[in-house]
Amino acid sequence: MSFMQQLRDRWARADSLVCVGLDPEPAKFPGRFAGDPDAVFAFCRDIVDATAEYACCFKPQIAHFAALGAEGALERLVAHIHSAHAGIPVILDAKRGDIGSTAQRYAIEAFDRYGADAVTANPYLGRDSLQPFLDRADRGVVILCRTSNPGAGDLQDLVAAREGGEARPLYQHVAEKVAREWNGNGNCMLVVGATWPEQLRDVRAIVGDDLPFLVPGVGAQGGDAEAVVRNAKSADGTGLVVSSSRAILYASAGDDYAGAAAAAARELRDTLDRAR
Amino acid sequence: MSFMQQLRDRWARADSLVCVGLDPEPAKFPGRFAGDPDAVFAFCRDIVDATAEYACCFKPQIAHFAALGAEGALERLVAHIHSAHAGIPVILDAKRGDIGSTAQRYAIEAFDRYGADAVTANPYLGRDSLQPFLDRADRGVVILCRTSNPGAGDLQDLVAAREGGEARPLYQHVAEKVAREWNGNGNCMLVVGATWPEQLRDVRAIVGDDLPFLVPGVGAQGGDAEAVVRNAKSADGTGLVVSSSRAILYASAGDDYAGAAAAAARELRDTLDRAR
Repeated sequence: MSFMQQLRDRWARADSLVCVGLDPEPAKFPGRFAGDPDAVFAFCRDIVDATAEYACCFKPQIAHFAALGAEGALERLVAHIHSAHAGIPVILDAKRGDIGSTAQRYAIEAFDRYGADAVTANPYLGRDSLQPFLDRADRGVVILCRTSNPGAGDLQDLVAAREGGEARPLYQHVAEKVAREWNGNGNCMLVVGATWPEQLRDVRAIVGDDLPFLVPGVGAQGGDAEAVVRNAKSADGTGLVVSSSRAILYASAGDDYAGAAAAAARELRDTLDRAR
Repeated sequence: MSFMQQLRDRWARADSLVCVGLDPEPAKFPGRFAGDPDAVFAFCRDIVDATAEYACCFKPQIAHFAALGAEGALERLVAHIHSAHAGIPVILDAKRGDIGSTAQRYAIEAFDRYGADAVTANPYLGRDSLQPFLDRADRGVVILCRTSNPGAGDLQDLVAAREGGEARPLYQHVAEKVAREWNGNGNCMLVVGATWPEQLRDVRAIVGDDLPFLVPGVGAQGGDAEAVVRNAKSADGTGLVVSSSRAILYASAGDDYAGAAAAAARELRDTLDRAR
């Protein structure tokens, strides 16, 4: 089953728009993991098992594994999600982007080595840098559009025109290109940050209902979950994958970390469900 | 010694603008590496040792290691360059870009885990996504500006204005931001592809002589090495790190692979030197 079909099934079955971000930072792990050489995998697995009921996706962030030399833990974590929680797709948050022959290697890294169902990608290098991802029709390609960080506007808000085209911010050009040109296989999503509710609305107006959004920035980054749903849901009340990482992972530093993570994921699910 | 000082010293000592790109593809390795479990490291090491005399930098491309699960080979390769060829800086080609807290993890990956002297980075997320790299004043940050691939213009050539600012292509905005705002520690470079000689000239005019360029796209991608030097060298005839990967690495598939790589690197050095 394709990533997009899996996602639609999961929205319906779990009645949840919540994506649990997996950003392991050993310094924040509960004390019981101190000295455990397998702490990165074990902590993430516990969070996955505790929150799966409330999740439409899991999103491991690869830098948090790579900085620790924990590629093996990431491989095992994706395999664990697929075997213990079949039907919940995994988005590998890697924001890759390079020329075509190298992008091909990144696609192998994400989809074949790690077995991710989707990967995040950066559009700055243009279409051919995304093509090896787009060509994998059964996998998802989650393209940066308007991000959630303070400096997002440095380039993304520059107002650009093209010959014969309307002047609009760069992020809207990206939205338009993805919707009209790059989504031929129907496997694209867009990253639009929760910290910018107006931009969510603008992008939804450009791309219509068929392109889901990955929305980071609720929780630790301060985005308003209800405003996200109000501004960006599709007509059927789905179309959103709302990601929270630190607020779920590190909800408690005590032995109740798994229960606290589950409660945080459930609360976000409920908040989002009330708003749609 | 900082990356930038190392690079300047190396330009002077080696009299070379050549960067040897290390993109291991086992299917292209000479037959003698068949079945060798350490082939990725061994092949790259042989290329490094054969071409060091003609190189101002080495540039391993991380996707080619990650797709193979060969992080260990990359760690050892960087360590080998530093120990056997001290004074030749290593640029890790990773094109990372993410929000600040994650960018911090990518900086640890590149500079601490792998020990790279510089890393390539993507500017789409704006200044705070680059800050953890910029803050490492002793390391280099090589920021994508105008890339060498066919789709580069999809976004990079969009003509953008800012309030009170002149309308110019996006890649020129990036050049200007790096030169005027982001290069406070003097540790930035720009990626400008060899396939676009006019853009090289335009970017040099914007940023002046103090910002070196990493120039991919000569060799397999077809860029004209002499046009690169003519359009983009700084006043003293340096300012360029001209990268060639496949044309050097795979110059011969026979047992003379190392000698053929050395000859290709020497020829590129000589071509570039004649033009400056």
